[in-house]
Parts: sequence; C-alpha cells; structure tokens
Amino acid sequence: MARRFPVRLDIARGKVEMTHGGGGRAGAQLVEEIFFRHFGNAELAKAADQAQLSIAGGRIAVSTDSHVVSPLFFPGGDIGTLAVNGTVNDVAMAGAQPLWLTAGFILEEGFPLADLDRIAASMARAAAEAGVEIVTGDTKVVDRGKADGVFITTSGIGVIPEGVSLGAARIQAGDAIIVSGSMGDHGMAILSRRESIDFDSPVESDCAPLNGLVGVMLAVAPNLHALRDPTRGGLAAVLNELAHDSGTGMLIDEQAIPVSETVHAACELLGLDPVNIANEGKLVAFCPAAEADRLVAAMRTHPRGRDAAVIGHVTPGQAGLVRMRTRFGGERVVDWLNGEQLPRIC
Amino acid sequence: MARRFPVRLDIARGKVEMTHGGGGRAGAQLVEEIFFRHFGNAELAKAADQAQLSIAGGRIAVSTDSHVVSPLFFPGGDIGTLAVNGTVNDVAMAGAQPLWLTAGFILEEGFPLADLDRIAASMARAAAEAGVEIVTGDTKVVDRGKADGVFITTSGIGVIPEGVSLGAARIQAGDAIIVSGSMGDHGMAILSRRESIDFDSPVESDCAPLNGLVGVMLAVAPNLHALRDPTRGGLAAVLNELAHDSGTGMLIDEQAIPVSETVHAACELLGLDPVNIANEGKLVAFCPAAEADRLVAAMRTHPRGRDAAVIGHVTPGQAGLVRMRTRFGGERVVDWLNGEQLPRIC
Repeated sequence: MARRFPVRLDIARGKVEMTHGGGGRAGAQLVEEIFFRHFGNAELAKAADQAQLSIAGGRIAVSTDSHVVSPLFFPGGDIGTLAVNGTVNDVAMAGAQPLWLTAGFILEEGFPLADLDRIAASMARAAAEAGVEIVTGDTKVVDRGKADGVFITTSGIGVIPEGVSLGAARIQAGDAIIVSGSMGDHGMAILSRRESIDFDSPVESDCAPLNGLVGVMLAVAPNLHALRDPTRGGLAAVLNELAHDSGTGMLIDEQAIPVSETVHAACELLGLDPVNIANEGKLVAFCPAAEADRLVAAMRTHPRGRDAAVIGHVTPGQAGLVRMRTRFGGERVVDWLNGEQLPRIC
Repeated sequence: MARRFPVRLDIARGKVEMTHGGGGRAGAQLVEEIFFRHFGNAELAKAADQAQLSIAGGRIAVSTDSHVVSPLFFPGGDIGTLAVNGTVNDVAMAGAQPLWLTAGFILEEGFPLADLDRIAASMARAAAEAGVEIVTGDTKVVDRGKADGVFITTSGIGVIPEGVSLGAARIQAGDAIIVSGSMGDHGMAILSRRESIDFDSPVESDCAPLNGLVGVMLAVAPNLHALRDPTRGGLAAVLNELAHDSGTGMLIDEQAIPVSETVHAACELLGLDPVNIANEGKLVAFCPAAEADRLVAAMRTHPRGRDAAVIGHVTPGQAGLVRMRTRFGGERVVDWLNGEQLPRIC
C-alpha cells in the first residue's frame, strides 16, 4: 500500500541524510520513492521485512556478492548493473535459473539522490533483462566519510533443473575448456575510467546476465561438467581454483583466447595480461571433448556467446597446475596472482 | 578441499590488506583461515561461487539486512551476532524456520584480523544457536577511510510451515497486541557504549534469535495473525507501519509495556521513550483476543519470552493511528519519528 508523504523527495537536488537510514518516515519514503518505484513488484510492495515466495521442491542455488566498485559509473555499466548481473551470474554458474534477488544498500550521508535513482534504474533494467525480481531489501546510512557513496550487496536464488549437476568435482582429464567471449573488457573499462586513459576505441565493460546463454548451453550439452564466471582475478584465477579443486592440470592456448584489439593493445602498453583481468559477462565451461564443437556452435547463436571458443583442455597429472602455450610457441605457467592488479573492480 | 598456503595468516597481529579483496591467493587464504574455520560446513567447504541446496516444495521466506552498527562490539553482542540474529529474526517473523544464511563482508583496509576473527566466531556461535548454516559468502576490501571497519550484509532463507500465513493484511480489529519481553535494551546498550554512559546496572543488548520462540507460539496459536520484530525505530515504528498497512488503529497501555528498571531510568534521564528504542531479540505478535492468554502463557515457558505480555489491542476505525494510555491516565498519539534517535544502531 503506497504511503502518502507530505512532500515528495527532491530526487534532482536532494542528498542522502542520516535520517534516511532510521526506522522512521524518512527511510520509508526513500525506499518507496526510489526503490519501490524502480523495482516495483507484488512481493516488494508488501514492504514486509521478508519476501514470501512459492517454490517447487528440488535443488536451489544461492549466492551473494557485495559490490564496492570504484568509480560507481563506468563505460558499459554502473554499480547497479554489476550488482544485479554479478549475482545472477553466480547463480547461473550452477546451471540454475535465477528467480529472485535481494538487495542491501549501504549509503554514505550526502550521496546525491539523483545518482541513487540512476543506479536503481540500472538495477531495474538489468533485473528485467535477466528475468529476475528484486523481492526484498534493506537500506542503511553511515556518516559522511565512513563509506564511499554506495555499496550494494545482492543475494540471488535460482532453481537448478532436474538432472543438472555442475561443479569442480566433475571436471576430468580430457575435458575441453571453453570461454564464451573476449577476456578483460570489464577490468580494462574500469581501469581506463579510473586512470583517465583514452584508448582509440573506447573499452566498454561486458557486464551482462549469462543465464540466457547457460540455458542454451544446457539444452545442447546436458553433459556439461562445470561453469564459472572469470570475475576478480580473471581467467587465470578461475582456472587455478578449478585445477586445484578438481585435482587436474590445465593447458590453454594463448592464441585461442579471444581478446579485443583494444584490450590487447592496452595490455601491451600497460604490461598487463588479459588472463588476469576481470570480466562481468563471460563464462568458462568444461565439457567432454566430444561435445565441445556442438556446444561452441550453440553458444555462438546467442548474443552473449558470439565469440565462444575452445581455448584448451584438462590434462591428467600435474594437479593444480595451469600452463599456457604462448603466442610465440613457448609454454609458461599461468600463475594465480597474490592479490589483484586492480582493487575495487566489482 | 583445504588449500595450503606457505605461511598462515597472522591473526593476532595482522591487518586486512587490499590484496585480501582481490581474486587471488591472499583473499582465498583470508576466507579459508577465518571464515571457513569458524563457519565450516559441507556446502561452504566447496568454495564455489554459490551454494547448492535441496529444498522441499512450498513457501519460503527470504530476507536481507546490511549491518553497519557502531561501535562494532557492544555489551551483549557485536556486529557478528547482530548480522546473524537480525536476519534469522526477519525470516522467523514470517513464521518460517530459518535454514541458511549468506554473508557479504565489506572490510576496510587496516582492520585488525583479530577483530575479524572475533566477529566470525560470534557469527558461528549465533548461527549454531539459531540452528542455521552460513552456506556461501563474499569478501570485499575498500581503501582505508572508505568504510568503517567492517560492514556485514546477511541474507536468510527459511521454510514456511504449511498452513502458516502471517502478515499485516491479517491483522483485524479486536486482535490482542503482545510483546515478548522488555523494550529498549539493544538501543540503550549501544547508546551507553557510544556515549560512555555508566549505568548502575549495565544494560546489555537483547540480541538473540527468535525462531525457537516462534516455533513455540505457532504450536499453540495456529491462528496467529502477524509477527514483527521492533528493531530500528522500536515498537512505535513497527506499530505505526502495521497500523498503516492493515488499515486499523491500535491502542496500547504504557503501564503494560515491559521495560527494565535500568532502561526506564536511563530514558527518564535522557528524555527518551522506550517505545522508540531498538530491540534485537524481541517480537510483537497479533492474535485473536480469545487466544491471547494461552499464547502469552506458552511464550513465558520459553527463555526468549519470559516477560511476554499483552500490551493493547487493535481498534476499529482510526486507521493508521496508534494511541497509548499513559502511565498517568491520559492518552496520547504514539508517533512515528521522522528519523532515528540513534543512527547506526544495527
């Protein structure tokens, strides 16, 4: 039931105030005039402290991600698109169809309401594209200087179709390693904005939902072994983690990894390697070699998988080791960096 | 599978570093040697980007809360106990049995690992007491001065028993209004710590899980209409919200509201009203008047409901208005404050 507040929020010129984080009218108004307006759905409109949802029995996938990206707005997206797609994708990597998201906002006193409104609008668009509803949420405000504009934590729930069972434990020697598209776009977009680097052709984040692509993949490759989205730490981190967790080795071919010309040039210039750079709309898949061509062909029919390619295979022995045949014909170990080349990438 | 890191984290003297938020080894080590060690369960140990869980079909309750309490440690609890109990209680207020939690951590660079370890230990204890598992999570690190130590966002999932249907829409004229115990303890504990006020007898936060009490209540009062936990904004905010959402009026009796002597004295001293002060281990219940005595008697058999009491009833007409018979025999409107008496209470 919509409440009536004597004066509407001044979204164009207003700022987040400490009272917006209290349990009182001001907070209720902020939630109603920004979040409910953008996210509107029957469950959220009940304004209860929890959503009540009907679900068929079976297996569900549950994921959570806190988002602290800086800057909040970047080429190809913003913290709102990231908060929705990041969690949608984590749920989708279990082979699940994401259904519902929750969103927890931590706002810094003084943050412009216009920016918050723009972020909420991005979240609503991203949720609509992914086919999920934001069913419940929470808003807190901290004093000026105790946060950095806005942090958003989203959690997602999805239903895993019967018979689908993906995970590191199913990866085995001989599996093909497939990526869905070019590596490094998100990280490079953030870097270019943060460091004010102008490339000849601008790099945009690849931030996008992957659940549609995953649906196409499961339809043609019910034998899929594992999916993972190479976000923080990039492809290198994901392959190292999966090689470790599955007790296998991996050999990839640098030449086969799709990288856009701009990202390639920027990496050369800055001394970075695209395999270490974050993506927000790409996945890595593992499937029996015999099914790889059919899977890649199916992926290429989907807009999010147009540049899908087999980039290597899982090897017996050398458990936990990821090697790469370089463009120059040599071979090197693809190490897992200790930290992150770029902090606050997502 | 446990990873091996060459040198263990120095939890006693170490600090959170930016690399702990990256996608690399340092972050994996932090998660493993602090969070996995405390929260350990089969699902979490898989270290996937999502938990995969089996669920019976039916209705579920889903909730999320971001926690930014200051100070992080306070009499009776800390941000960790609050993060677990706050979300457990929001799920329980739907009459649901909470099963799983997710946890998203935003850490400030330089935060002592010893404090993080202590908070994780508190979360593990609180989760064990509530009978829930922390099944997946996420950790981000922001630069020094861009957060305030640690913020924790938890989401919770619970199963609503068949036949249970609670909500503001079911509240009707004649319903008894019941509280489970004394009002104002959490807010006053935070205030005393923050303002370094020493009371004769120390005030402790009431931070506690309420799902056990709710189970007892549902067993004797299947006709329960609504439950709500009076957190931010206290009893006054919750009653005003529910009066608004249900289109009813409410009349409560100041004399009947349980308030501890210390909180009462502190409120007198500081000019505060216990009905506006936050609680973290109390609930408000609405049920048909004829069932109220039996319900209160059952609540009093549970440690979290020992001081349960009927404090008023729902009235026809005067929709949205909450009135209180004062201790002095008068009557006044219990208003919903615009903001919060105390910021960052949870």
